[in-house]
Amino acid sequence: MYLKKTAVLLYPQYSEYELSVALSILMQAEKPVVTVGVTHQPIKGEAGLVCQPDATVDEINPEDIDSLLLTGCLDIFSLPEEQVERLVGFIKKVTNRDTVIGSISSSPYLLAKAGLLKDKTYTIGMYEEDRKKTGLFDEALYSSALVVQDGNMISARGSGFIRFGKLFGQALNLKFDERWYGDKEND
Amino acid sequence: MYLKKTAVLLYPQYSEYELSVALSILMQAEKPVVTVGVTHQPIKGEAGLVCQPDATVDEINPEDIDSLLLTGCLDIFSLPEEQVERLVGFIKKVTNRDTVIGSISSSPYLLAKAGLLKDKTYTIGMYEEDRKKTGLFDEALYSSALVVQDGNMISARGSGFIRFGKLFGQALNLKFDERWYGDKEND
Repeated sequence: MYLKKTAVLLYPQYSEYELSVALSILMQAEKPVVTVGVTHQPIKGEAGLVCQPDATVDEINPEDIDSLLLTGCLDIFSLPEEQVERLVGFIKKVTNRDTVIGSISSSPYLLAKAGLLKDKTYTIGMYEEDRKKTGLFDEALYSSALVVQDGNMISARGSGFIRFGKLFGQALNLKFDERWYGDKEND
Repeated sequence: MYLKKTAVLLYPQYSEYELSVALSILMQAEKPVVTVGVTHQPIKGEAGLVCQPDATVDEINPEDIDSLLLTGCLDIFSLPEEQVERLVGFIKKVTNRDTVIGSISSSPYLLAKAGLLKDKTYTIGMYEEDRKKTGLFDEALYSSALVVQDGNMISARGSGFIRFGKLFGQALNLKFDERWYGDKEND
């Protein structure tokens, strides 16, 4: 059976830990994944892992993608505007109403820029003051919950990264063993 | 002030999530980190992140290292023997009685090969049958706890990755905000 892929966007200062559990769950279920950068240049994460993206935003065929995973970024406002534009263009290109989207920490900022937060309840790891400054967010639809699912879209604040990964896997109907990431009894 | 570094070993199928919280805590505290591979070749993690190591095992000066972080590996017995030998040689080269060592999942296997588990209480993400097959482990010192600290050495099973990261940071006297990784109330 041909399986569509999850596109995992990478940008400078991408958050490794916020991404890691979602990524591990995809691997457990043998869901194909492609990491995507604006260019082929290696990209340094916020904690220092230098990652080589599998493909660039221009190389991805939207037909091959059924889901999108966006991790946080230590300071998303520090991303060069041209990179932001190309990432947002990619998000618009590969998504449709059926795309499963997981977006954690500050990354829903990119979804908002792509117009994908319209009429969606969401959360984001960004102060209200900063959200307002961008002029992109509907405060009435903001939720202070740690992880929020509205239809195919899962958003989360950074510290919800484990539950975020599990919900993303469930939204894709993946089978995985959640005990890999700890449980109340042991932790 | 000159700060010594934490050496983070990378090998094929390294576990991203088991490493991610420890790495994030080092970043929070601005502890210098160097990722180390056997060669300069990019290394693919178990969940697909292709990482470019900062240095090779031959390029590291032991004087620059005060701590060592070993993440899991999806199948540590699948590592080529020559790579294992060079990783073990590196571990021997850079460690002394003061080195803080964090080792999660199956990676204490490399510590055992380096002779560093002698007289240490430890845990490991490896079945008893496999431990015995290697002939490297003292079963009397094995602990079934999720995370174990004995002096400067912290070992953990994979699902203890958050507590593992915190203990590693504490052993290095780092200051960090542990709420980044969730708390009981919210999760």
